[in-house]
Amino acid sequence: MTPQNAFYAQSGGVTAVINVSACAVLETARRHPDKIGKVYAGRNGIVGALTEDLIDTSQESDETIAALRHTPGAAFGSCRYKLKSLEENRAQYERLIEVFRAHNIGYFFYNGGNDSADTCHKVSQLSEAMGFPIRAIHIPKTVDNDLPVTDCCPGYASAAKYVALSTLEASMDVASMSATSTKVFVFEVMGRHAGWIAAAGGMASTAKRPVPIVILFPEVPFDQDAFLARVKATVGEHGYCSVVVSEGVRRADGKFLADAGYTDAFGHTQLGGVAPVVARMIHGELGFRTHWAVADYLQRSARHIASRTDVEHAYAVGRAAVELAIAGGNALMTTIERSADDPYRWEIGSAPLEEIANREKHMPADFITADGFGITDACRHYLQPLIRGEDYPPFAEDGLPRYVRLQNAPVAKILNTPFEP
Amino acid sequence: MTPQNAFYAQSGGVTAVINVSACAVLETARRHPDKIGKVYAGRNGIVGALTEDLIDTSQESDETIAALRHTPGAAFGSCRYKLKSLEENRAQYERLIEVFRAHNIGYFFYNGGNDSADTCHKVSQLSEAMGFPIRAIHIPKTVDNDLPVTDCCPGYASAAKYVALSTLEASMDVASMSATSTKVFVFEVMGRHAGWIAAAGGMASTAKRPVPIVILFPEVPFDQDAFLARVKATVGEHGYCSVVVSEGVRRADGKFLADAGYTDAFGHTQLGGVAPVVARMIHGELGFRTHWAVADYLQRSARHIASRTDVEHAYAVGRAAVELAIAGGNALMTTIERSADDPYRWEIGSAPLEEIANREKHMPADFITADGFGITDACRHYLQPLIRGEDYPPFAEDGLPRYVRLQNAPVAKILNTPFEP
Repeated sequence: MTPQNAFYAQSGGVTAVINVSACAVLETARRHPDKIGKVYAGRNGIVGALTEDLIDTSQESDETIAALRHTPGAAFGSCRYKLKSLEENRAQYERLIEVFRAHNIGYFFYNGGNDSADTCHKVSQLSEAMGFPIRAIHIPKTVDNDLPVTDCCPGYASAAKYVALSTLEASMDVASMSATSTKVFVFEVMGRHAGWIAAAGGMASTAKRPVPIVILFPEVPFDQDAFLARVKATVGEHGYCSVVVSEGVRRADGKFLADAGYTDAFGHTQLGGVAPVVARMIHGELGFRTHWAVADYLQRSARHIASRTDVEHAYAVGRAAVELAIAGGNALMTTIERSADDPYRWEIGSAPLEEIANREKHMPADFITADGFGITDACRHYLQPLIRGEDYPPFAEDGLPRYVRLQNAPVAKILNTPFEP
Repeated sequence: MTPQNAFYAQSGGVTAVINVSACAVLETARRHPDKIGKVYAGRNGIVGALTEDLIDTSQESDETIAALRHTPGAAFGSCRYKLKSLEENRAQYERLIEVFRAHNIGYFFYNGGNDSADTCHKVSQLSEAMGFPIRAIHIPKTVDNDLPVTDCCPGYASAAKYVALSTLEASMDVASMSATSTKVFVFEVMGRHAGWIAAAGGMASTAKRPVPIVILFPEVPFDQDAFLARVKATVGEHGYCSVVVSEGVRRADGKFLADAGYTDAFGHTQLGGVAPVVARMIHGELGFRTHWAVADYLQRSARHIASRTDVEHAYAVGRAAVELAIAGGNALMTTIERSADDPYRWEIGSAPLEEIANREKHMPADFITADGFGITDACRHYLQPLIRGEDYPPFAEDGLPRYVRLQNAPVAKILNTPFEP
């Protein structure tokens, strides 16, 4: 009997290592030709499944697939597309399963965050109800580190390493300049409503190598007076200060700090980054010269300085997903389970999707210092093994990494019916 | 006879490799104890000389000095401090020479850009006139790459590599997201009035790995209609676009693009970064979703991804400065002389400071494409060898590089007279 095919798709914002999980799925599937036929990827994520725009990964050489391990971005394209609830748009889910049925897809591997875990869960349920049961396994991925159950989310640790390293390097810069020039460096990082990425900035400072860093977490309502007093005192003591600010910081009234009431020449509200707002506030109120940076995509795409731990996690959750599915697993997410901080020990586990979907993991309260501006030892113990180790991509003669591009050859359509996602 | 001491100072904005030159100066001086006594460094650059705040580098171990080779920032502190003209403030120059005389300093090594070349020149001239001749050698350093005579300035190539790599990684991110979300990524880089750093963004795209990149150079007056038309066409053709914008871009009327007429809630003009202005313009006029990043200090401090060529240049100009001075050289700057692009061949030369001071090297006109939005093959041939090669710092168990901190022990004051620089 010909084995069933598998479907793999990437969802949401990319990470430096989402392609590492893709590499693991494809390499593991290739080792089980008796169990899995071809692996089709969704072009631009789940939208590719809805529109029957599938990519035939069997066209790619083993060497190309292996190179995904050191390539950032989303090799098959990702998407920001949340399926509506089953009640609201059952047709979307039915369409997915029709496409899967047409292409004899018996395995569904979905690599993403919270929303995609939910989609994965519903595909599993509905396929069963529609008489074409599909084993659906979710592979965790998000720089926001907000999936429950798993100890951490692949992608987060590399963003954390990038932010810790960038904070250290920029702090050495401002320290060098502070006697006669810039005294405060402000660094804006991602993380939405969670301070996981901002917390990583605190790792630039250690007992052996102290660096004066003030962190603004989205979990802590912004108190302008307390913040400015802290910056002033820090510059007074150390001569300079670095501020790591999360994009999602809000004032006590719930308003984003980035919404500082700026208007442009036409009177439109200007919602810029939060770093320039903080830098301007410091300069205006304390008189210090400031510099500011916004990392944006760089922090989630910097494969060149990815965490080796993260790369190993991302590969392991992808490989385990395929092995789980082959073994009959269904409606599960692969997870990272930590058993010790130092030396760091971890293994792969799994959790039912109903425990994952639509639940968010927040920073533990005891990860933030009582004053709200720093990280605790508990946070350091959590973060330390995650950012340890490097995993450099090979570089070419052009001075840049040998990041791979796939052919992404289309699979011939079978349904060939229009569908507007 | 006891050999004379040497003075070394770092000036202006730091680079990822200014400490590489410091390392070279100290290591080379230590190999010539018969010619050079101690090397004193200026704490916070030339300000340390004016205030007699000298650092005794002989207190640092060989191992520590060697670690400067992989450490960013300015190990002795830098400064933004331009000496006035000799006519305007002769007392400043006389003070310098008094301090040097008091500490028996016969060699002056100044590591910086244009202003410091000028200071170096005057110290040489005035010391002679004051009967205490000092051999003054300037060591080139600037990410802006605007010093004349030398083929390139140490520090530039690492910033260029960082910008090329970041542009590539972020472009892979936006390419992954563009089907359903962000279509344009805007990346702001340094360079003041010269497009050298912005040009490096163009290196992310090669014939084998084309990436749609639009560059905004300070040399090209900003034409909003032409720019928006180019972005629209690029997104139409490729599905996405990256824009690399130099901080110094101006409109045809000479006004900085960053000055877009935004005012805050109090009616004050908001002079933010140029990236958010460009991103907002694209979103407002073309409707594309955008993301933007500002590299700021990160691009000149990213020692972790420094160019190996740059590290070699920075070491060579430092070593040659000491060797030149020992051989009797004076009022010179060490230079990089290129003899071939591919394979890249270069050697160290030197140039009289009167040919350096107060002259700026601009981007050749034939480095920018006729449409004003890209780099030519001539530019590629120039840049290619500069960004080639990596030179990773060693990393520690904390997941971050083993960047070194010096003790920076003070030299006992001899003059001990107050001086307000």
